Amino acid sequence: MTAIIFTYNHDERHEYRSPQRKEQSHDHKSSSPHYRRLHRHRRSYAERFARRGHDLVLVARDVARLEAMAGPLRQETRVAIDIIQADLTQPADLAKVETRLRDDARIGILVNNAGTAIGGTFVEQSIDDMTRLVALNTTALLRLASAIAPRLAKSGEGAIINIGSVVGLAPEFGMTVYGATKAFVLFLSQGLSLELGPKGVYVQAVLPATTRTEIWGHVGADVNALSNVMEVNDLVDAALVGFDRREPVTIPPLPDAGQWEAFDSARKAMLANFGNALPAERYRTVA
Amino acid sequence: MTAIIFTYNHDERHEYRSPQRKEQSHDHKSSSPHYRRLHRHRRSYAERFARRGHDLVLVARDVARLEAMAGPLRQETRVAIDIIQADLTQPADLAKVETRLRDDARIGILVNNAGTAIGGTFVEQSIDDMTRLVALNTTALLRLASAIAPRLAKSGEGAIINIGSVVGLAPEFGMTVYGATKAFVLFLSQGLSLELGPKGVYVQAVLPATTRTEIWGHVGADVNALSNVMEVNDLVDAALVGFDRREPVTIPPLPDAGQWEAFDSARKAMLANFGNALPAERYRTVA
Repeated sequence: MTAIIFTYNHDERHEYRSPQRKEQSHDHKSSSPHYRRLHRHRRSYAERFARRGHDLVLVARDVARLEAMAGPLRQETRVAIDIIQADLTQPADLAKVETRLRDDARIGILVNNAGTAIGGTFVEQSIDDMTRLVALNTTALLRLASAIAPRLAKSGEGAIINIGSVVGLAPEFGMTVYGATKAFVLFLSQGLSLELGPKGVYVQAVLPATTRTEIWGHVGADVNALSNVMEVNDLVDAALVGFDRREPVTIPPLPDAGQWEAFDSARKAMLANFGNALPAERYRTVA
Repeated sequence: MTAIIFTYNHDERHEYRSPQRKEQSHDHKSSSPHYRRLHRHRRSYAERFARRGHDLVLVARDVARLEAMAGPLRQETRVAIDIIQADLTQPADLAKVETRLRDDARIGILVNNAGTAIGGTFVEQSIDDMTRLVALNTTALLRLASAIAPRLAKSGEGAIINIGSVVGLAPEFGMTVYGATKAFVLFLSQGLSLELGPKGVYVQAVLPATTRTEIWGHVGADVNALSNVMEVNDLVDAALVGFDRREPVTIPPLPDAGQWEAFDSARKAMLANFGNALPAERYRTVA
């Protein structure tokens, strides 16, 4: 059975949080019911694939946490679970995971799940936090896809799942840099779907909205104070329905698929009109 | 008069080109009519602003080329032209430009013009070329915007112009990674426009289609063999019409503004429907 590689971003000791949020950092390491609930939910995606009989390779910085998740899952499902310790913002660690993706022919599915967010407005965010956000959410995701894609294309099968966000469709939501990284992920997924689909490789972009994950700790928000929060289990189940349908873009909270199709059609309607050698009339007069 | 900082990417000695294109590299350094035409056109954007009386700060790796452009322009327009040597993919060089943007209160406009592309399909492109593409097209552009934005917001005036591409709207065009960086630039610009506009700072995304620039050398294509190529002078004039109108997104080749508006409206129509705590009905049944 195809093995699946999952990337995680266990961020509780990380420096992404804005300075004024530091007092909250103990919450993340505590064994409060809230923390334990998050922890339990984190394994959902991997657990679903394990229950389908897939062996797993889990990648994160915090090996102890992965082991705590892997132990019971091995017992319950009898699948093999490998663990790779890697901080995907560090080139040497990233290279280690890339090598595994390139060389291990058993791995047929990549789930690009690692990703984070930063709090504050654009003028408040530090330039280095932004840079790390881009490194994890775009560069690392891209490099992992690039490491596995040629092998999958050659074998004519496999899948890449990229976790984006509805924020990547919504500059209005005020998370400008995070949203830009997720717009990158959506476009990349769509482009890869068109490039790799004909070679037998399925590429899925999953666009969650507000979901009960640790990412809210990274931006200094209390997820329990937010409304309309989707549980991770529900999100993953919906994402897997999209996966089984081989849907290129899955937006679990969006009720009407026609709205996505209208948006995508409006986009495609422009394409033929980009091929003009002269500027449009509307740009020839100053007004 | 407000000074303007322009970034360039003089790429002729760069390693982005795919190996099989190496034999073409001499063309870029030659003094062929084709090369000289490109060279002359490169100065268009800066020249327009100089003729409007703005002092300039030009940033690129190739100082000799910038000097060759700056000399005649100084004589013609009497504006002051500073030159900064910097390779924007190198953190130390990038930091030098960021410091200038942060500290020099005369600089009121940033033109994020540096950017490149890589040739080939996704499975052919090298992982390191992709990484450098992201570093220049997204990280450097983002960091420069972040360096100037707080000062502009505080002063309540100024502008940031980000050069995107229609490719960022078109995964169908087969330039997946390049397009993903340009989707990032479009989203970032839209988000910044919403964040900074109310503070008096104008943010413009300019989305060229095929334009007669050196970027075609970077992907190993002969621009003279392409059809529907816009001349740089025409592109810049159109972009400046959009600039003077304070348009958030300027797509010079697109004749019908209504097509962009329909696309943007279809996007906005989805936003309220992302706020569902439960997955859509269509994702609750496997089919």
